[in-house]
Amino acid sequence: MPIFEKARELAVIHSSAAVIGWDQETYLPPAAAKYRADQLAWLSSRAHELATSEAWKNDLEAAEAADAGTDFKLTANLRELRREFDRATKLPVELVARDSVASSLAKHAWADARERSDFSSFAPHLETLLGIAREKAELWGYANEPYDALLEGYERGTSTAAVAGLFDAMRPSVREIAARAVENSAAHAPVLPAGPYPVAAQQNFNARVAEAIGFDFQAGRIDTTTHPFCTTLGPRDVRLTTRYMESDFTSSLFGVLHEAGHGLYEQGLSAADFGLPSGSAVSLGIHESQSRLWENHVGRSRTFWEKWYPAAQESFPQLAEFPLEKFLRYLWRAEFSPIRVEADEATYDLHILLRFELERRMVSGSLKVADVPAAWNELFRDLFGFAPKDDQHGCLQDIHWSMGGLGYFATYTLGNINSAQLFAAARQDPAVAAAIDQADYLPLLGWLRKSVHSHGATLDPPELIRQATGSAPTTDAYLAHLKSRYL
Amino acid sequence: MPIFEKARELAVIHSSAAVIGWDQETYLPPAAAKYRADQLAWLSSRAHELATSEAWKNDLEAAEAADAGTDFKLTANLRELRREFDRATKLPVELVARDSVASSLAKHAWADARERSDFSSFAPHLETLLGIAREKAELWGYANEPYDALLEGYERGTSTAAVAGLFDAMRPSVREIAARAVENSAAHAPVLPAGPYPVAAQQNFNARVAEAIGFDFQAGRIDTTTHPFCTTLGPRDVRLTTRYMESDFTSSLFGVLHEAGHGLYEQGLSAADFGLPSGSAVSLGIHESQSRLWENHVGRSRTFWEKWYPAAQESFPQLAEFPLEKFLRYLWRAEFSPIRVEADEATYDLHILLRFELERRMVSGSLKVADVPAAWNELFRDLFGFAPKDDQHGCLQDIHWSMGGLGYFATYTLGNINSAQLFAAARQDPAVAAAIDQADYLPLLGWLRKSVHSHGATLDPPELIRQATGSAPTTDAYLAHLKSRYL
Repeated sequence: MPIFEKARELAVIHSSAAVIGWDQETYLPPAAAKYRADQLAWLSSRAHELATSEAWKNDLEAAEAADAGTDFKLTANLRELRREFDRATKLPVELVARDSVASSLAKHAWADARERSDFSSFAPHLETLLGIAREKAELWGYANEPYDALLEGYERGTSTAAVAGLFDAMRPSVREIAARAVENSAAHAPVLPAGPYPVAAQQNFNARVAEAIGFDFQAGRIDTTTHPFCTTLGPRDVRLTTRYMESDFTSSLFGVLHEAGHGLYEQGLSAADFGLPSGSAVSLGIHESQSRLWENHVGRSRTFWEKWYPAAQESFPQLAEFPLEKFLRYLWRAEFSPIRVEADEATYDLHILLRFELERRMVSGSLKVADVPAAWNELFRDLFGFAPKDDQHGCLQDIHWSMGGLGYFATYTLGNINSAQLFAAARQDPAVAAAIDQADYLPLLGWLRKSVHSHGATLDPPELIRQATGSAPTTDAYLAHLKSRYL
Repeated sequence: MPIFEKARELAVIHSSAAVIGWDQETYLPPAAAKYRADQLAWLSSRAHELATSEAWKNDLEAAEAADAGTDFKLTANLRELRREFDRATKLPVELVARDSVASSLAKHAWADARERSDFSSFAPHLETLLGIAREKAELWGYANEPYDALLEGYERGTSTAAVAGLFDAMRPSVREIAARAVENSAAHAPVLPAGPYPVAAQQNFNARVAEAIGFDFQAGRIDTTTHPFCTTLGPRDVRLTTRYMESDFTSSLFGVLHEAGHGLYEQGLSAADFGLPSGSAVSLGIHESQSRLWENHVGRSRTFWEKWYPAAQESFPQLAEFPLEKFLRYLWRAEFSPIRVEADEATYDLHILLRFELERRMVSGSLKVADVPAAWNELFRDLFGFAPKDDQHGCLQDIHWSMGGLGYFATYTLGNINSAQLFAAARQDPAVAAAIDQADYLPLLGWLRKSVHSHGATLDPPELIRQATGSAPTTDAYLAHLKSRYL
């Protein structure tokens, strides 16, 4: 079908850019960065041209007209291609260009403002980007509030009200669990035996773990970067990265477990459908559910370490006299940090609840940009019990807004919620549960392949969750998990 | 100027493909290879479309019409763009497609034929490719014989007769030097102390050497591959590779010196003119002159090792009792091998003289494909004194013909000739010579930057050599060098 051929060609362009982007983060010589941006810009222009072309539109319309609706996957692919085409073409070229310039300027201004903890120098940029986001929302359209249209870009098929419903339902419990976990941790959390944990030994251990949970090194690799990430360079080419601290081997390991969760999802998508919605990840909230499942439900579980701790002790002799129970308490330590990216499992969602609420108010117009720092600090104090010492540790800490990424943050907590609901559902299968209890995770991976990965983007996230777990997205399993781990 | 903007865009496409090609050779997961070919094919099609488009032609014609001939670089850039455009557009699409299919089939057939040492199964493919090469030569046009047109693709501005003149002039001396070097080596060459020479220590030593001769790690790197190569991913991004033998550190080191020679040339081209002929390497024979200069004239010299051998002894303790004189005799050992890629400096050119002669006869029609093995063996015996044991070690050993690369081989020996002529000319500058005698090679690099690199492709190779050395290409310096080293 011509439109599918075009979609596959678009994937060739995007994945070529992914190769260049991966190289940029891993092995790029310092002086080479500038030209690399030219290469990415050229590919990005070709992708945009193709995906918004008359030919694309005509092929898509022809396919839609010919679709009898009898083939679920075909219809889903056309529906998703239509959704993407409409989102891409509803914005006038002038707005896209203005957005690109504004984000580029804002990113530099934000980095500088954060450095100097000076919100006032970033505020005009945030104002501009917020205005553009509102313009986009109007052009894209929405059911209830403009924020719906922004959220849709990251998490299709849900709504601001639905997300707020989940977040409101979990807020009291999450606050209580976090507070008690932090208190408990302050009293009892042990210190990990001193390093060095040699990087080569960490790499070796991490690779064994990644392989044991099913990451396919024939179709992927692990490299080193400042910030861990996962990227897909082709249908059988998934690259993870992590970073190494010689003082703590768990830093690189949990980087690998998190990114391998993303990578297992990517490796589980249909290679034959690469470039089509049916061969693509559906949303950030589902992607994050996979990373958090492997990182937290598997990697921070007692069962996992009953199997792997002896191997860790062999790899890192300083652990020999450090008992498993202490190590687990070390893993489960919790602390109130003003910084989201340093937050642990017990406190992470508080950071997201805060951002979601502020973004929603900004987009609706009830919170002015000038009032963001005060609102941030007030809400932070309410959730964490103290205020950040300055805006660098408060509303200036994240890069997302400077990239115009309003609507993104919610997907982190949606990922947490989904991870628990999927993990609990997988355990309903007795064979999966029995294997998990033996620290054999391949049946779990098989369940995820069948229930999540194999669907690609043919089901909207709430429907995907409903079909996989028997229930609409709910915080029950997630709160039960947090309580069981931290209380 | 619009045609220069197009040429720069073409460089963006080619260099994007270079990133993907580099990744393919260095870090590609095994299962990812197939899709990578799709990405390269897409980029290659876009490059071909652009470089043969009506718009390109019109812009080039407009620029040519407007050129007053008063700006040497401008005129040279237009001349070279015209040369490339004509070569690309003189071939009908049908022939390009047929060539592509034939080479693809031939590569597989060749690998299989070599494996089984069965020339007869490769012969029909070689016949086809030879026919296509002749068709191309007719379309491109030539002054004296069809081989001229093929050679032009690798070494512009020279002729088959000129190359044959150089090769004929050197044949007797090269034969004699090789024979005596091999004889001498059999009697006196020592064995390198046993390994292991740890890879990490080799990498460290190689990087120090590369940096000392001027390779800029801000704009380049060294990685590991099965076959060493150098590739350029952007105006400030030159990637070298080498391979490691734990039994002999000189293998990876001379890989690095050779590839760094290519890399220094690439780093010495004008970054501002990247994508224009004035910012591009001019030919394979000049490129190879740079790699061979650093590999053989610098890296195998006594002066170089008087400086670096103590450092090598520190890096590799087994060298402590192995004196410099023995090490140098080890470096200068010579042996008659049937395999070109295993040949040393003293015997390498014999392999090229043989291939050049056979190719020229094949293209002129005086040697039939069926008679290639017999002709190869006869000529080999004449040059080396023995015949290869089978075609796997004879006419099937190289990949070049299976890729349709008739005309390529000559550039290896042209590179050797040029390297000696340039090195001798550089030494005419007293400051350069004095520094070389202190194993300080940065003045030499400065001389090469000025005399070779900075010209890009604005001068044809023979003229480049004439301006740099004061004489047309001649074998005098090269033969003097071989005699001084091996006799």
